[in-house]
Amino acid sequence: MAEGPLTHLEGTWQGTGRGSYPTIEPFTYDETVTFTALPGKPVLAYTQRTTSAGGTPMHTEVGYLRPVGTQGVELVVAQPTGVTETHDGVAGYEPDGAWAVTFTSLQVGLTPNAKEVVSVRRALRVRGDTLTYELSMAAVGQPLTPHLWATLQRIKD
Amino acid sequence: MAEGPLTHLEGTWQGTGRGSYPTIEPFTYDETVTFTALPGKPVLAYTQRTTSAGGTPMHTEVGYLRPVGTQGVELVVAQPTGVTETHDGVAGYEPDGAWAVTFTSLQVGLTPNAKEVVSVRRALRVRGDTLTYELSMAAVGQPLTPHLWATLQRIKD
Repeated sequence: MAEGPLTHLEGTWQGTGRGSYPTIEPFTYDETVTFTALPGKPVLAYTQRTTSAGGTPMHTEVGYLRPVGTQGVELVVAQPTGVTETHDGVAGYEPDGAWAVTFTSLQVGLTPNAKEVVSVRRALRVRGDTLTYELSMAAVGQPLTPHLWATLQRIKD
Repeated sequence: MAEGPLTHLEGTWQGTGRGSYPTIEPFTYDETVTFTALPGKPVLAYTQRTTSAGGTPMHTEVGYLRPVGTQGVELVVAQPTGVTETHDGVAGYEPDGAWAVTFTSLQVGLTPNAKEVVSVRRALRVRGDTLTYELSMAAVGQPLTPHLWATLQRIKD
């Protein structure tokens, strides 16, 4: 088990999302996300993969979340497109009882052939067995712009 | 299947390694590494975990490698300690037929509570079903210093 507030995220989540960006056509996707406690450490391993409605693989990414104190969450992400992210987050409860964490992008690392990503903003919200997230991105000459929205259901603890 | 030279890495590898650093006691570890082709993309997903001889979890990390041209390899890594790495690498064959890739560290990303890592140098070498690697690190006030050495055998394609 993860410690503290990260326990809200543990499990396997599935659902659908939609994406848009000024430089591309809007799209939809099916998504599976896992948050799995690392043995012996207060850290969650994160995996994500999306497919088109027809089952064609789209995006995937991996990373880790670790708690800092009672409300802090640090996040690292690696993407096969040659992008890494580090984030500092603050978690808390909302009036309806949902647990939410909003991350501030610290650094974005890029390999030489990666597309230019300047910053990424990620926000997660868990209420019971429903996880919603939003991702905004400043990239390829665009300012920080909403990019992805998804709603997932916990299918496994 | 991955495309091009990355096929040398595909599979599951197991073996042992040893570590040292000016700031810590020398240690040894058992290690499992996987390089798995992403469906439909010329990219390998990388996972790594080490345990003590007694089975206690030690380090783990994840990332991706992607080929660039015939000899280039880009690498991204995320670590649960709050560290990300981006690397640019060059691969080629050595006189004995081994395939080797040496990575140059581009950026190291750190979350606020991560230990100070300045740069990481990684080199991998595959000869048949034997993978050896070396990792050097500039961190916690030390210059770039050899840190890890391991020899693994491919146990699964």
